[in-house]
Amino acid sequence: MPFYQITNQAGSLDAAQRAEIAAGITDIHLDLAGGLRQFVNVVFQEYPAGLGFNGGTQGAPVLIGGSIRAGREQAVKTAMMEAISALVIRVGHVSPKDLTVSIADVKASNAMEGGHILPEPGEEAAWLAKVGPLLGLTN
Amino acid sequence: MPFYQITNQAGSLDAAQRAEIAAGITDIHLDLAGGLRQFVNVVFQEYPAGLGFNGGTQGAPVLIGGSIRAGREQAVKTAMMEAISALVIRVGHVSPKDLTVSIADVKASNAMEGGHILPEPGEEAAWLAKVGPLLGLTN
Amino acid sequence: MPFYQITNQAGSLDAAQRAEIAAGITDIHLDLAGGLRQFVNVVFQEYPAGLGFNGGTQGAPVLIGGSIRAGREQAVKTAMMEAISALVIRVGHVSPKDLTVSIADVKASNAMEGGHILPEPGEEAAWLAKVGPLLGLTN
Repeated sequence: MPFYQITNQAGSLDAAQRAEIAAGITDIHLDLAGGLRQFVNVVFQEYPAGLGFNGGTQGAPVLIGGSIRAGREQAVKTAMMEAISALVIRVGHVSPKDLTVSIADVKASNAMEGGHILPEPGEEAAWLAKVGPLLGLTN
Repeated sequence: MPFYQITNQAGSLDAAQRAEIAAGITDIHLDLAGGLRQFVNVVFQEYPAGLGFNGGTQGAPVLIGGSIRAGREQAVKTAMMEAISALVIRVGHVSPKDLTVSIADVKASNAMEGGHILPEPGEEAAWLAKVGPLLGLTN
Repeated sequence: MPFYQITNQAGSLDAAQRAEIAAGITDIHLDLAGGLRQFVNVVFQEYPAGLGFNGGTQGAPVLIGGSIRAGREQAVKTAMMEAISALVIRVGHVSPKDLTVSIADVKASNAMEGGHILPEPGEEAAWLAKVGPLLGLTN
């Protein structure tokens, strides 16, 4: 956590585009929402052509859902979604009308990394000092 | 947004069934919850046979998760889930006991289309007049 | 509902591991949160190698998201996430630092099985007596 899932049609993004989008989302999240780099996950869940629909007919919607720890202010979330939208439109050549970005606020107490409840936003340092060694994290 | 993700076993629905289900969900959403047709997305996330489990043993569960803007009354959501369940059971020949339908209420401020925060339910017209041209929408 | 979705890299778990994890999650849920065995769904949504990223670079994160009915106490949810984490680390040989487990609390009124609104936690017996026959459930 955070976990960003990108749902896109297979073949619409090549490996270089996926890598640039994943790195970009990671940087956007860390710059704006903070947290630990190690815990930013991005996965592309691609669907075969023909399995996406928009407005009731076949299409190729791109859906980005971010699950982040609750507690960030609206301005932070808005800035994150704007930056992620701009990134994906630019790098992925996605038509703006095909792109949906949403954020789910997940209580820190409802998520674990490696079996340990997540810290609240801002309490990462103390958490990492305690839990990091258990997870084999050196940074 | 709305975004309906259908999780089903690959091969359990053919292209005609998927198209009928996607069109049907779109119509149900627009009829009952309102909103803009352009923004109704449906994606089938199919899993290979053997990767679904029900009650702890292999099965072929069908899971439909809809992420919609928050603010709809319970009666509307109940009617939507009933209509979607009936549609999928009828068109997809899904056994009722294998079908789960759920709705997640997403704050409009937690979602963007093409980089623009969504309007609250009922405020679509003003939003579309302003944002539509930026998204290249003509309707 | 409950519905547990496991997002993992294809090839990282074999059929026996998936079956043990699915059965284990089902038992953990029933032991700790209660409910009806029939309604516990587990699906593996595997992504091809190269489509997962961690910390901005390619990786193989394992993400387990459980959607359960709201109303369970934090202690129950914590124990469930701990047990699921331990299970997946042990059976799947997943590095703890690659594993995220989260729970989403879904209002019972926002979910249906076979077209019927779910009962609140603890009200399963009365619900099953009424709805079970409609779903063809004999247990």
